[in-house]
Amino acid sequence: MSKPPQDALPTVNARIHPSGALDILSRDEVARLRDASTGMHDLLRRCALAVLTTGSVSDDPRAAQAQYADFDIQVHQQDRGLRIDLANAPAMAFVDGEIIRGVAELLFAVVRDLAFTAIELGEACGRDLNTSAGITDGVFDLLRNARILQPTDPRLVVCWGGHSISRDEYIYTKQVGYELGLRGLDICTGCGPGAMKGPMKGANIAHAKQRREHPRYIGVTEPGIIAAESPNPIVNHLVILPDIEKRLEAFVRIGHGIIVFPGGVGTAEEILYLLGILLREENAGLQFPLIFTGPTASAAYFEQIDRFLRLTLGEAATSRYEIIIADPAAVARRMTAGIRKVREQRIAQKDSFFFNWSIDIPLEFQQPFRPTHEAMAALDLHKGRKPHDLAADLRRAFSGIVAGNVKEDGMRRIDAHGPFEIHGDPEMMQSLDALLRAFVEQRRMKIDGDYHPCYRVVA
Amino acid sequence: MSKPPQDALPTVNARIHPSGALDILSRDEVARLRDASTGMHDLLRRCALAVLTTGSVSDDPRAAQAQYADFDIQVHQQDRGLRIDLANAPAMAFVDGEIIRGVAELLFAVVRDLAFTAIELGEACGRDLNTSAGITDGVFDLLRNARILQPTDPRLVVCWGGHSISRDEYIYTKQVGYELGLRGLDICTGCGPGAMKGPMKGANIAHAKQRREHPRYIGVTEPGIIAAESPNPIVNHLVILPDIEKRLEAFVRIGHGIIVFPGGVGTAEEILYLLGILLREENAGLQFPLIFTGPTASAAYFEQIDRFLRLTLGEAATSRYEIIIADPAAVARRMTAGIRKVREQRIAQKDSFFFNWSIDIPLEFQQPFRPTHEAMAALDLHKGRKPHDLAADLRRAFSGIVAGNVKEDGMRRIDAHGPFEIHGDPEMMQSLDALLRAFVEQRRMKIDGDYHPCYRVVA
Amino acid sequence: MSKPPQDALPTVNARIHPSGALDILSRDEVARLRDASTGMHDLLRRCALAVLTTGSVSDDPRAAQAQYADFDIQVHQQDRGLRIDLANAPAMAFVDGEIIRGVAELLFAVVRDLAFTAIELGEACGRDLNTSAGITDGVFDLLRNARILQPTDPRLVVCWGGHSISRDEYIYTKQVGYELGLRGLDICTGCGPGAMKGPMKGANIAHAKQRREHPRYIGVTEPGIIAAESPNPIVNHLVILPDIEKRLEAFVRIGHGIIVFPGGVGTAEEILYLLGILLREENAGLQFPLIFTGPTASAAYFEQIDRFLRLTLGEAATSRYEIIIADPAAVARRMTAGIRKVREQRIAQKDSFFFNWSIDIPLEFQQPFRPTHEAMAALDLHKGRKPHDLAADLRRAFSGIVAGNVKEDGMRRIDAHGPFEIHGDPEMMQSLDALLRAFVEQRRMKIDGDYHPCYRVVA
Amino acid sequence: MSKPPQDALPTVNARIHPSGALDILSRDEVARLRDASTGMHDLLRRCALAVLTTGSVSDDPRAAQAQYADFDIQVHQQDRGLRIDLANAPAMAFVDGEIIRGVAELLFAVVRDLAFTAIELGEACGRDLNTSAGITDGVFDLLRNARILQPTDPRLVVCWGGHSISRDEYIYTKQVGYELGLRGLDICTGCGPGAMKGPMKGANIAHAKQRREHPRYIGVTEPGIIAAESPNPIVNHLVILPDIEKRLEAFVRIGHGIIVFPGGVGTAEEILYLLGILLREENAGLQFPLIFTGPTASAAYFEQIDRFLRLTLGEAATSRYEIIIADPAAVARRMTAGIRKVREQRIAQKDSFFFNWSIDIPLEFQQPFRPTHEAMAALDLHKGRKPHDLAADLRRAFSGIVAGNVKEDGMRRIDAHGPFEIHGDPEMMQSLDALLRAFVEQRRMKIDGDYHPCYRVVA
Repeated sequence: MSKPPQDALPTVNARIHPSGALDILSRDEVARLRDASTGMHDLLRRCALAVLTTGSVSDDPRAAQAQYADFDIQVHQQDRGLRIDLANAPAMAFVDGEIIRGVAELLFAVVRDLAFTAIELGEACGRDLNTSAGITDGVFDLLRNARILQPTDPRLVVCWGGHSISRDEYIYTKQVGYELGLRGLDICTGCGPGAMKGPMKGANIAHAKQRREHPRYIGVTEPGIIAAESPNPIVNHLVILPDIEKRLEAFVRIGHGIIVFPGGVGTAEEILYLLGILLREENAGLQFPLIFTGPTASAAYFEQIDRFLRLTLGEAATSRYEIIIADPAAVARRMTAGIRKVREQRIAQKDSFFFNWSIDIPLEFQQPFRPTHEAMAALDLHKGRKPHDLAADLRRAFSGIVAGNVKEDGMRRIDAHGPFEIHGDPEMMQSLDALLRAFVEQRRMKIDGDYHPCYRVVA
Repeated sequence: MSKPPQDALPTVNARIHPSGALDILSRDEVARLRDASTGMHDLLRRCALAVLTTGSVSDDPRAAQAQYADFDIQVHQQDRGLRIDLANAPAMAFVDGEIIRGVAELLFAVVRDLAFTAIELGEACGRDLNTSAGITDGVFDLLRNARILQPTDPRLVVCWGGHSISRDEYIYTKQVGYELGLRGLDICTGCGPGAMKGPMKGANIAHAKQRREHPRYIGVTEPGIIAAESPNPIVNHLVILPDIEKRLEAFVRIGHGIIVFPGGVGTAEEILYLLGILLREENAGLQFPLIFTGPTASAAYFEQIDRFLRLTLGEAATSRYEIIIADPAAVARRMTAGIRKVREQRIAQKDSFFFNWSIDIPLEFQQPFRPTHEAMAALDLHKGRKPHDLAADLRRAFSGIVAGNVKEDGMRRIDAHGPFEIHGDPEMMQSLDALLRAFVEQRRMKIDGDYHPCYRVVA
Repeated sequence: MSKPPQDALPTVNARIHPSGALDILSRDEVARLRDASTGMHDLLRRCALAVLTTGSVSDDPRAAQAQYADFDIQVHQQDRGLRIDLANAPAMAFVDGEIIRGVAELLFAVVRDLAFTAIELGEACGRDLNTSAGITDGVFDLLRNARILQPTDPRLVVCWGGHSISRDEYIYTKQVGYELGLRGLDICTGCGPGAMKGPMKGANIAHAKQRREHPRYIGVTEPGIIAAESPNPIVNHLVILPDIEKRLEAFVRIGHGIIVFPGGVGTAEEILYLLGILLREENAGLQFPLIFTGPTASAAYFEQIDRFLRLTLGEAATSRYEIIIADPAAVARRMTAGIRKVREQRIAQKDSFFFNWSIDIPLEFQQPFRPTHEAMAALDLHKGRKPHDLAADLRRAFSGIVAGNVKEDGMRRIDAHGPFEIHGDPEMMQSLDALLRAFVEQRRMKIDGDYHPCYRVVA
Repeated sequence: MSKPPQDALPTVNARIHPSGALDILSRDEVARLRDASTGMHDLLRRCALAVLTTGSVSDDPRAAQAQYADFDIQVHQQDRGLRIDLANAPAMAFVDGEIIRGVAELLFAVVRDLAFTAIELGEACGRDLNTSAGITDGVFDLLRNARILQPTDPRLVVCWGGHSISRDEYIYTKQVGYELGLRGLDICTGCGPGAMKGPMKGANIAHAKQRREHPRYIGVTEPGIIAAESPNPIVNHLVILPDIEKRLEAFVRIGHGIIVFPGGVGTAEEILYLLGILLREENAGLQFPLIFTGPTASAAYFEQIDRFLRLTLGEAATSRYEIIIADPAAVARRMTAGIRKVREQRIAQKDSFFFNWSIDIPLEFQQPFRPTHEAMAALDLHKGRKPHDLAADLRRAFSGIVAGNVKEDGMRRIDAHGPFEIHGDPEMMQSLDALLRAFVEQRRMKIDGDYHPCYRVVA
């Protein structure tokens, strides 16, 4: 028996001819794009669906995967150009049969980046992805191809924080975005909901009030994330990096400063990644404004984060960030001042404004971490290690926990072999455990039903 | 004893040099602007304050008048240019000491239009404001001077409706605005909150998604209204007409179609004004899309309006409007189709796209109605009159009730002489009374405490 | 017998709908424009023909008047807009039946300015054209209405000089224009051939090489001149002032510096007008770069001018100008430096960049001089007068000679009453006579056959 | 003893930071650009000098090589960007110490294309330059990298013809360019003087009159040509292809139509290249407007060309071109009509507007012809061959004669081994000989002193 019609969501079939980065291609490139997109059809399909359901109420692309089970996307070579065929696509992406222009742009970005990654970062072109410089060049190429790099004055603020935050926290992220936007700053986030959407929304209103032309709301994501989380509708530039580590590098290379809002394990991973880099001797003199901020109710959250960082990375780590509570204008003023210093330093060091070549990111931060039980057990979380080494392993610990909690193969491993064992210094382990429990209590993790930790701390 | 500091709202003193319509002035014009603004200092002060508190939480400029009692504005002649001095101005209009650009633009609009009205529409320049054509030319001059008139394709939708509407209704106005914006239409409203803000907000999101450059959110107001109601922060073009009647004419001359959302007495006044014009024989063949719409819960509201219009103006009146309930996309599609016909007719009749010269508006709709007890008693609300004459008097009746309810001298007259007496046909009076009572019940009128009607229906 | 077809120049009939300053007009304005253009039909016809033959080989609109004797122009009110009908118009202004856009713009400028002058500067609007300030405001209004006034940085160089100059001199004016253009300066001239065309042509090439967007080549003229001399094809902004004196004032108010190339009596008139103003005490501190320049062969020409100015106006006059021979780059560098000082002074004195309000121009320089025998005889050219008063009368003397030489009613008066008598100091008269004879010898005056002076110097 | 100062041409030392295509580079690319430019230092130096002397009077870069013997250019890696150091560069490219923006753009184009050719078209990236498709893709890449390919409506007219033409012919090329420009067409030429400059100059005036924004004057050249011939100053887009054959392919792929003005052996080579392609069966249905045109005095020239083409390629060849004498407007109208058909065909065949993928160019037309005595003797110029094969060999014959006349190693070979022997059909050889002699008589070849033919026709 067929589905009752009242349940069926309206869909559209459409043929789309790309423009922008995809409009001046050679025959050969068109053929390679078509082939590449065939080879990664399922990934392309999931990412495309996420983009086509941008701005939907549910904000949950996994629901979309079920609701639009018949959806399909094919990239065709039409004579000398490219044609994208959509079958049973969500009607919400269309107006009177025509795709919404902004949605089409995000869709082209998906095709462009997935194909680019497959083609250009592959072995064929001789780039050495086993060296740090090779990976950085690969990240540069992808960002340039996505037209993210522009020779303008430094003004890009990266905002990190959770997708599931309280209403108070969400309003606060909008207020901070508003104050940033009033001061002419652009916003870059992971492009999902919550703390990734609020700052863009606030900045958008401020940019309109300041009559700013062509403001930029950049979403930086990777295939696993975007397939699980639609870009929010404010995003007007989207780039998909091949994995988490390259995505983190992209944030750090293009952002002129970073603001961290409250979040969960993912946000903790990001903080440790960044501090692990900033605390390296090679980056000692580098200007890099970093602000942790939230509303009054989040004060305790940041106190706990602060305690954990002091304990694990040492007091020195605190010189790299500033905590500001419940003062959006102060956050924006501090960020503006910090970026002014970044600008001066780039000029003095003749570094480019659009890509932070100077910051040293070692290979161990660039290579994907695969959270097996062995890898998790091998993490060395003891005092006495250099802070940045310790930060790298702590980052991996959080990354593994995220995987064990929500990623498909992580969860499968936990089911098969029981919780990960994480070894470390007793005091550090206790602090880690407390932090993780707090995240659960504050409902910062997307977890259904009771929470069964996917890890066991072994002191 | 002075106010305790904790209550004092932050303020800023600033000197601003206008740009846009005010930047290329002759010495003489600068002097006249300065003089005109001195002559209307209190009005200018109140309008400026409304603009400077745009987007504030309270949305109530009367509160602002109390909160910023020390605020002052002076227009100075600085050598060959104009300078606006603000004293104790709301800090919210500034960022780090600099006025927000969009707020500054609205402020210049206030100075420009109040001065223009005082100078250009005065007796001096020999324009005859006692003729219909003279008034229309005056409205045209003001709109052109405010750069509202542009030689683009027809795409301006006027949205009417109440400032105090239910949350459901507000969300619905946003949805309609979104659908209009997706189809490339611009929005014009009375520029306050509620149904004047929702459509702009929805359209703003849609325009961003469609990557529309330079969308227009036009606010059309008059001194009494703007002083009582801040323009919403989406408005990017503001024009202040000298009185209610010229404001209504401006809507009708520049809009390519009108959508009416639920509202109170003011909205009823607007509907009767428009139908009074459209039902004239002179306007019989004129294309003018007019849609009444609201969410499901508003169906009863529009049924009552519809009944009232049929009863008073006759069945023929219904040919001029369409009621669509709970279908934002259908509203936008119908409006798009209607505007297409407007476009064809303008071309066929060689009329301009930016100003509807063809629509006939007689002098009695253009001259201000002063609601004294005598004038209200003289209204002739009987069957048998021509629908458009009756509509004109019904419009005046609603206008008088608005004044008696909320305008200062109207309320003073009611206090002194008791309620207005409105004479008319029993059935019509009964229907009018029922309509007004419904407005009260549905809390569509801004009234504190119990409602004591300011009128008495005399059948 | 009709003209043989082989002589007939190709013509076109066309209907044109104006844009730009003429596209948003009220019904009333359209009617007034139509009426005004009817009232000055012959003038409009001659000016329009000059514009339509822009860039023709002959460069002589009087020939054009004969060649296109059947040409006609009518301004019609088409419903709510304006329509210009051209009959038997020169085909050279059209491409495949469509008017060249730049020519159309100049044509709209003609209609706009002639009608504006007739309408706005008339008595009706109460402007007092008997006061100096009133005339200046009128000039301002005309320039603003023609969109000549723009709030940009000072960069407008006025170039004066003869229409009939040697090939060497013409090439030199192009070289100076090229050097000015390389430095980002715009050009304003009397818009005819010779020294009015060369600087624009040179600047045009330089602007292209510097990738300058929207350079401005402003032609400032008056009805008598334009009807006798087509604007050159580089002109992209044209404004027609009502008479010679207002045209001279326009040059002085909008130019940020002036360069004088070799010329005849007209150029001498311009020099004396300007020095008569700059030598006033009221203008003593005013920055106003003024350079006389030409190729090596013109050195003697400027020496003679210099001698004449020293003799008549005194040594002090020389402080107001600089003579540079055969060095285009030096001219441009000096002008750039001079305009930098103008900019500083405007800022310091809070004067506008786009209109020189500060310069004092007395009424006697603004009112038209009508060169009758009585007026010429009454000129007081004696030593001992204040330099600026003397300059004013010398300017009138040259103006009268121009009229007696080439203007229709001037020539008629000379035929009837014999040559003008000009009274003055013997030495000054001798010098004046020598100067005028030199102009004749150097063929700087448009004179057919033998030259019979239209004046007699009476010592 | 040092050079006497009066002989020394003024020079400038400068450091320039590229923008445009060279401003967003990776560290690696900067290093490769630096290395590539070191490896081709002499070529880069000569091409750069040609660009820096653009618009000079002599128009002869070989003179420039002597006059600026000390000139040097170095490409440096400055931290993360590129820096171009110029030593003893011609002062004419600078204004007050700053390089002229348009000249800088051409200089960047030289660096960009020479480096790109060296890097990207090398073996490293795995492109197969031994296949026709591989070469076409290489040409595409170079053109795209130079931002020549734009997704606009077809409007690019390629103009071919001699660098040394009569004054009448030059004026005629300007008139044709003017008529093309009036109709909105852009111009592409070999970017030197004569027939390569005239059409751009005429179009430039027309584009200004039509107020066209961003017109394109594209120069397509190759290292040997540009080093011998400065780009004319109108060129605003420059691309350097690696050799003559790729340059010819670029013309044919990007042009929407071609106009041939009178020229010498080089122009004959171009005509035969194009007819050799158009006469292939594969290109039978292809729309490709081709017009031969010149002033009345050139009629005989084209008659002779026409006779030669009929004789060698057969009557069928004449269906591919049209000869229009002394009618610039007719040329432009025919070209406009032809391009309209090109547009329709591209749409029907879903081919791109910006690159003519459909036209079939076989490998033998793409591979460089090296004119040795053996190669010249091996040419098979007999009747009975397929027209396109014969055209290919005739093209080579002309190419060899150009080399023997003016190119360094061609001339050396002639000196060493005597004239080339060209074998062929007697009638054909006679016609060829007559054509070549006519070129000499008409002074269409750059030859000093008496002309000693570098070839001997053997029937």
